[in-house]
Amino acid sequence: MRVDVTPDGFDLTFGGRLILRHTAAAPCLFLGRGDARMDMYRGNFDIEDRLTARLPLSVARVMVDGIGWRISFTVADGIAPIAELQVIGNILRPTVTAPNVNRFWLRIAAEAGEHVWGGGEQMSYFDLKGRRFPLWTSEPGVGRDKTSEITFKADVTGKAGGDYWNTNYPQPTYLSSRKYALHLETTAYAAFDFRQDGFHELEAWAVPEQIELFAAESFTGLVTQLSDRFGRQPPLPEWVYNGAIIGLKDGGNSFERLEKIRAAGVPVSALWCEDWVGLRETSFGKRLFWDWRANEQHYPGLKAKIAALRADGIRFMGYVNPYLCNDGILFEEAEAAGYFATDGNGKTALVDFGEFDCGVVDFTNPAACAWFEEKIIGQNMLDFGLSGWMADFGEYLPIDVHLANGVSATLMHNAWPTLWAEVNARAVAKRGQTGEALFFMRAGFTGVQAHCPLLWAGDQSVDFSRHDGLVTVISGALSSGLLGNAYHHSDIGGYTSLFGNVRTPELFMRWAEMAAFTPVMRTHEGNRPRENLQLDEDPQVLAHFAAMVKLWVHLAPYLKALVAEASATGLPVQRPLFLHFEDDPAGYAVQDAYLYGPDLLVAPVWQAGETHRSVHLPQGAEWVHVWSGARHTGGQDISVPAPLGEPAVFYRAGSVHQALFDGMAAAKTGAV
Amino acid sequence: MRVDVTPDGFDLTFGGRLILRHTAAAPCLFLGRGDARMDMYRGNFDIEDRLTARLPLSVARVMVDGIGWRISFTVADGIAPIAELQVIGNILRPTVTAPNVNRFWLRIAAEAGEHVWGGGEQMSYFDLKGRRFPLWTSEPGVGRDKTSEITFKADVTGKAGGDYWNTNYPQPTYLSSRKYALHLETTAYAAFDFRQDGFHELEAWAVPEQIELFAAESFTGLVTQLSDRFGRQPPLPEWVYNGAIIGLKDGGNSFERLEKIRAAGVPVSALWCEDWVGLRETSFGKRLFWDWRANEQHYPGLKAKIAALRADGIRFMGYVNPYLCNDGILFEEAEAAGYFATDGNGKTALVDFGEFDCGVVDFTNPAACAWFEEKIIGQNMLDFGLSGWMADFGEYLPIDVHLANGVSATLMHNAWPTLWAEVNARAVAKRGQTGEALFFMRAGFTGVQAHCPLLWAGDQSVDFSRHDGLVTVISGALSSGLLGNAYHHSDIGGYTSLFGNVRTPELFMRWAEMAAFTPVMRTHEGNRPRENLQLDEDPQVLAHFAAMVKLWVHLAPYLKALVAEASATGLPVQRPLFLHFEDDPAGYAVQDAYLYGPDLLVAPVWQAGETHRSVHLPQGAEWVHVWSGARHTGGQDISVPAPLGEPAVFYRAGSVHQALFDGMAAAKTGAV
Repeated sequence: MRVDVTPDGFDLTFGGRLILRHTAAAPCLFLGRGDARMDMYRGNFDIEDRLTARLPLSVARVMVDGIGWRISFTVADGIAPIAELQVIGNILRPTVTAPNVNRFWLRIAAEAGEHVWGGGEQMSYFDLKGRRFPLWTSEPGVGRDKTSEITFKADVTGKAGGDYWNTNYPQPTYLSSRKYALHLETTAYAAFDFRQDGFHELEAWAVPEQIELFAAESFTGLVTQLSDRFGRQPPLPEWVYNGAIIGLKDGGNSFERLEKIRAAGVPVSALWCEDWVGLRETSFGKRLFWDWRANEQHYPGLKAKIAALRADGIRFMGYVNPYLCNDGILFEEAEAAGYFATDGNGKTALVDFGEFDCGVVDFTNPAACAWFEEKIIGQNMLDFGLSGWMADFGEYLPIDVHLANGVSATLMHNAWPTLWAEVNARAVAKRGQTGEALFFMRAGFTGVQAHCPLLWAGDQSVDFSRHDGLVTVISGALSSGLLGNAYHHSDIGGYTSLFGNVRTPELFMRWAEMAAFTPVMRTHEGNRPRENLQLDEDPQVLAHFAAMVKLWVHLAPYLKALVAEASATGLPVQRPLFLHFEDDPAGYAVQDAYLYGPDLLVAPVWQAGETHRSVHLPQGAEWVHVWSGARHTGGQDISVPAPLGEPAVFYRAGSVHQALFDGMAAAKTGAV
Repeated sequence: MRVDVTPDGFDLTFGGRLILRHTAAAPCLFLGRGDARMDMYRGNFDIEDRLTARLPLSVARVMVDGIGWRISFTVADGIAPIAELQVIGNILRPTVTAPNVNRFWLRIAAEAGEHVWGGGEQMSYFDLKGRRFPLWTSEPGVGRDKTSEITFKADVTGKAGGDYWNTNYPQPTYLSSRKYALHLETTAYAAFDFRQDGFHELEAWAVPEQIELFAAESFTGLVTQLSDRFGRQPPLPEWVYNGAIIGLKDGGNSFERLEKIRAAGVPVSALWCEDWVGLRETSFGKRLFWDWRANEQHYPGLKAKIAALRADGIRFMGYVNPYLCNDGILFEEAEAAGYFATDGNGKTALVDFGEFDCGVVDFTNPAACAWFEEKIIGQNMLDFGLSGWMADFGEYLPIDVHLANGVSATLMHNAWPTLWAEVNARAVAKRGQTGEALFFMRAGFTGVQAHCPLLWAGDQSVDFSRHDGLVTVISGALSSGLLGNAYHHSDIGGYTSLFGNVRTPELFMRWAEMAAFTPVMRTHEGNRPRENLQLDEDPQVLAHFAAMVKLWVHLAPYLKALVAEASATGLPVQRPLFLHFEDDPAGYAVQDAYLYGPDLLVAPVWQAGETHRSVHLPQGAEWVHVWSGARHTGGQDISVPAPLGEPAVFYRAGSVHQALFDGMAAAKTGAV
């Protein structure tokens, strides 16, 4: 880091990259005050800020101190400083002495043609340049496109339509094509605005703890630095490599249906039954019963069945979330012990989830965490035989509850996903099952990397739509991957079916083709199983799925190498093209194709009715189309046939895994 | 006006009413800078402000001078003043010395329970309290309700859905229930924010010329003051009292169809043919040919037909707007003379209106105005025999054109409707036809009152919808009426039919019932005549319409008295309940019923399928239901039957017009 005084201000550079350029006419720092309206509707937030003050801090004074610099700021000559930036190492640490400040803006120098990525798990746009991204964990929205009929209906019926920037997992961290990364350390509501040519504007609704900078000679080096900073996942459990995780929520029938799927030749690693806790009938349909323990009525003899399945080489997985319904047994115990967030009058804050109310376990209370970890995850889940689960939600902390640590829920809201991940990770660690029990989350925030072993892409619509369909999973994997989340996967076939939008066989098959090139293959019945195609209903779909899982199992040795690499360097399994092909800027904005490790290039078909796929082959390698064996020079856009069962996949000529890749075609048929 | 220094600032009162309360912690004035994105799509604007600075001017110093006060403002002690408010008479005149200021906010003291009205012609909400109203002339939107399917479709297909605040006629003027009014003199983009309890925040995207205050002992006194300030309309032409204006746009057939309507017993004052200029075929359907002169092909022998009609006691009306299509004859003439707004390179700025392009006649160029007034309105219209016209548009000045007066089009945009009204009014005056030729406009802004003799409510949807249907016309009449627009009317049956939304007979009849209690009854074929019910197609509708027009003609003596009152005092014909019943605050927010003059209370049925109407009878009078003769004490809510043909109308017992009112029932049948 280096601060140079200029005639009218200062320049701050980091690793030779201009980060701040301050002049009196174009200051880099603004402070202000806003009065925001923030309304939550079942995890969807309607937020409107009313800005009452925004002060450009035109006057800056740079002082050198023993360990770095101190830059004081104020609004005009003759006024005492009201803010200071302390510059030490790779850190900028702001302090503000002006009263009543709750808005903070910092402008980072930008260059024409710059690209930026990250922002957590971004589903619509991988390259963030040209748009503004609020960073606030929430439901991602249904359709996520204000011009779509589905989004319109979701908005009108439940304020649930969402927009391009809504995500379960925001994170105020980005990487720039100038090979630096920046992290804003705050859990306050934040927004990154990349719309301007000359600067990126970072906004936070509190003075952030600090701004951290990272720079490297290569993008891979940058990702490793971020992974070092935010934490690294344990390797995937060995049992995962056996095959797909089959999601069924059909009570006792799930076991029989699993056998039918296995009989069709599908390699299976686990049966995942989110309804292991039983069901509740509501006017919206069947919902899970949020009292986290096995339900003997719905799954008679479950413990024994899990053991039998395990003896047969197949694990059993379940479901949990941070809430407890007030008609469950665990609620009583938690309330008696004072483990719930309160309403400010000492009463349990009840949150409406649609005809049932829940308490929010207060993860700022160490005793509540310990109880949840031991009683629920330890005894009720791990000891019972579960090998993993969906650790759902994390985005819903209401901003009006009172918490044990005394911090406002508005500030804790974004922190919640990481706290929830920690509870799960600690519970697993306490049973010595880190790297063995596998839970997966959609919610995230800064630091979730250190605790959550596997992300899942949330609740896509069961369609090919641009902003909520199959293709969004790739953007989610790539953006979160750059921030050190090595493992990502999705619901094969999508999840959300509303307003008559239902799965087609084509969608399910295309999704499975993509999932065959992700670290975990897992199916989901979706939110309305009876109205939507299920894996075991259509012989063509089932056969296609079997082929894709066989392919995935065939590639397990390669995946294991990627897992080892992730453990060593933090590089994600799914990678944007430019991560290994830095000299080919054509890859900067590609978000519908990716590198699966360093040696496979995957371009899933993500639109209905397509039989070919156009793809940019990165410059600097020769690429072999795995189904035809045709060789193509990198640095060109080509189109290849991509009928069902043959997703557009290429390997890098000369890969050490070439023999494995050459066996892919045969592997699909089980002929290996 | 009075300014009192307080321990921590000052209080400014006007007529005893607290207007500004300034303290260091809660300043009344803010200055700043914004960088707005303003995109126009055929009269619909997508506007987004990016605020870079907003400075609370905490420090104020009050100085008495010979004629009033001067209050200087700055951001902090020790900083020289950067703004001043000069207080003289009823005027606050701001001056700003800080550079680069393009945002101005003034907070007006407000009281709990206060009501506010005005803002120009507001279609969705008559009482503005609790909402924010951007003030920028534009298309009003289709549906104007983000939860409606029609608005969604209009937004997606043409960014045309609109919202509650969109209006053809905004005006930065409001009246308060504290019996004062405030006018912000600026043509810049402005917004009035009435959401807060303690203050109203007025925003302008320029430092306004001045803030004008009005106070009176009564609401009627306040309206008269505003009418004195903004100008007063000439009386309605005598010929209008003969009956309805029948809108037909069917070329030569229009004359035959008129006869059928007359034969059904409809009293007619004029035939209005907007297609008198001919048609253009586009993929969107038939559009008018924007070359303002009679079209001999479409209306053979029109001049003679107009004369014949006139001899028969019926006038002929046409259509004009401020644009000229570039394939018309007048375009060539205007371009050669340099009468068009330019693109900055001296070329005519062409505006796309949907498969045809037009020049914008530059009304800041006196020569262009004189030409438009003489050549088009004088010769082509008045001399040709037209007795009036729809003076359409006025809202569409693109903000990127260059104008003869050198002022930015962004500042002239809001001024345009009034300039357009002036062109029309001067042209009429030059032929000595003020008060004789009747043009009507939907667009408006400050000062339009002095030039436009009749407002029309714009393009409602052909339905009963809350934000774009029949009921919105009442809000438009009441809000604009309080600002001194005495005469208001609407398209009977509505105008906009899109996405399969079509007129029902019930809608047409309910609309006619309301229109019978407005200064002018005029039908419109709508934007898609062939798909929508027409007056002469349905015998029940035609008979009902004849009855309503007879009723209207019967009330002409009363209307003439109201016209005389409007000329003398500026009071509008249609009035909110509280205008004459100040002690009954229940009338403050009523926007679906109104006083028609001082003595009639009208509560139109504005929802489909209703056969009764609930209505609040103002306290302080006794009310006689005109159809049943039943008498009701004021100060209560009652419900009366309101079958088709019997809109809920009451007269004030003891009115000098009582005999006339008693004849209303008979008048409908022509039995008088």
